[in-house]
Amino acid sequence: MSGRIYGVGLGPGDPDLMSVRADRLVRGCKHIAFFRKLGRSGRARTIVEGMLRADAVEFAMEYPVTTEIPLSDPRYNEVLSAFYEACTDHLRALSTSGEDVVVLCEGDPFFYGSFMHLFTRLKGDCDVQVVPAITGMSAAWTASGAPITWGDDILSTVMGTLDEPTLIDAMTRADALVVMKIGRNLPKVRRALEAAGKLDRAVLVEYASMEGQSVRPLSEFDRETLPYFSIILVHGQGRRP
Amino acid sequence: MSGRIYGVGLGPGDPDLMSVRADRLVRGCKHIAFFRKLGRSGRARTIVEGMLRADAVEFAMEYPVTTEIPLSDPRYNEVLSAFYEACTDHLRALSTSGEDVVVLCEGDPFFYGSFMHLFTRLKGDCDVQVVPAITGMSAAWTASGAPITWGDDILSTVMGTLDEPTLIDAMTRADALVVMKIGRNLPKVRRALEAAGKLDRAVLVEYASMEGQSVRPLSEFDRETLPYFSIILVHGQGRRP
Repeated sequence: MSGRIYGVGLGPGDPDLMSVRADRLVRGCKHIAFFRKLGRSGRARTIVEGMLRADAVEFAMEYPVTTEIPLSDPRYNEVLSAFYEACTDHLRALSTSGEDVVVLCEGDPFFYGSFMHLFTRLKGDCDVQVVPAITGMSAAWTASGAPITWGDDILSTVMGTLDEPTLIDAMTRADALVVMKIGRNLPKVRRALEAAGKLDRAVLVEYASMEGQSVRPLSEFDRETLPYFSIILVHGQGRRP
Repeated sequence: MSGRIYGVGLGPGDPDLMSVRADRLVRGCKHIAFFRKLGRSGRARTIVEGMLRADAVEFAMEYPVTTEIPLSDPRYNEVLSAFYEACTDHLRALSTSGEDVVVLCEGDPFFYGSFMHLFTRLKGDCDVQVVPAITGMSAAWTASGAPITWGDDILSTVMGTLDEPTLIDAMTRADALVVMKIGRNLPKVRRALEAAGKLDRAVLVEYASMEGQSVRPLSEFDRETLPYFSIILVHGQGRRP
């Protein structure tokens, strides 16, 4: 009997916002795997601190590269691809030996997550089950204290890593906006929001649902970079009886 | 001491996908409010069947109108607005008398939900807290067995109620798509997907995370209407190491 591999979404950061199913799997499973940057404790692992079994066996999958090699360099894909292969070899071996494994995933596994790179490599060979979760953007608009969409609003989710003309075009056409992966792209994102006529309505949410959560108009924030867990929102203005 | 009003997102339908916080609030609160269509049991209420306190006091908020009056008729907004006022009067009175109330919300309260119409009317007078939840679209892409977005994909969420040129434009420009509120708009949505060159990749998900869940290519579905809990997805094709 092979074991099952669970890709378990942990949600935006507050353990109280994990699903009942995720909570049960994390507390009950012996084998726990998670991504982290080299030398860091790992955000997914941090969310479940205090929840694991006393005899839990942890498998930390440490990224060999993050921002050292530019995305455009072919070595970036090569290095990451070899890394994902090594991770899946280990997970597949555990499954073959009859062990279930919970892979901890920040946010929702199938929404811009790293788990999908394991999933596509494992799905033919193993029983893989994905547990969806509350997204970071849901936590951000909840923290903002206002609905993100009304009526027939079009919501677009865009990454700050896109080029400026693409950002301007997407921002102009959407009624409601979520901007993620901002970091050092903040000046470009700000210019694009201005060109799209939405800068005055843009709200910056940092650490949604976590300690240090803050919500403020983007116009009141004058730094050039943002921490990783920052999301910019522009709320829709659709029909409201 | 006034009571608190909780807008509690229940997620896509499977109670096991409720958050730990939502589960605790639903099981613990005496006053439970929810929307439903006249003469129906109400979908939000159905999700929590068997979870309420034995002495729970239920407040069913029954929509006076749904599809009988067209959206374009000014009476539609008038009738709904009066209904929301009556609902909030009742909730405000409970809060003033010191009672906490849980308002059950399908999906995520601030994402195209009905709770926002209560929220905007109550937030000045009452302590209102919103609990985010897993969206129906997250359950749909999880059911589809494939990630919705990769790398820098732009995800757009559009309502089938939009006019055809707007749909075509939004569908053409997005890398990944979620289409909701389809129902009788299915023929229009299908034409728009074809015009946008995405019909062959469109996947229809019905009853995601619920009994009767089904996933199939939209091209294999030849009826003219869809049940309310149907979502059409077009998966992104972005960068994948």
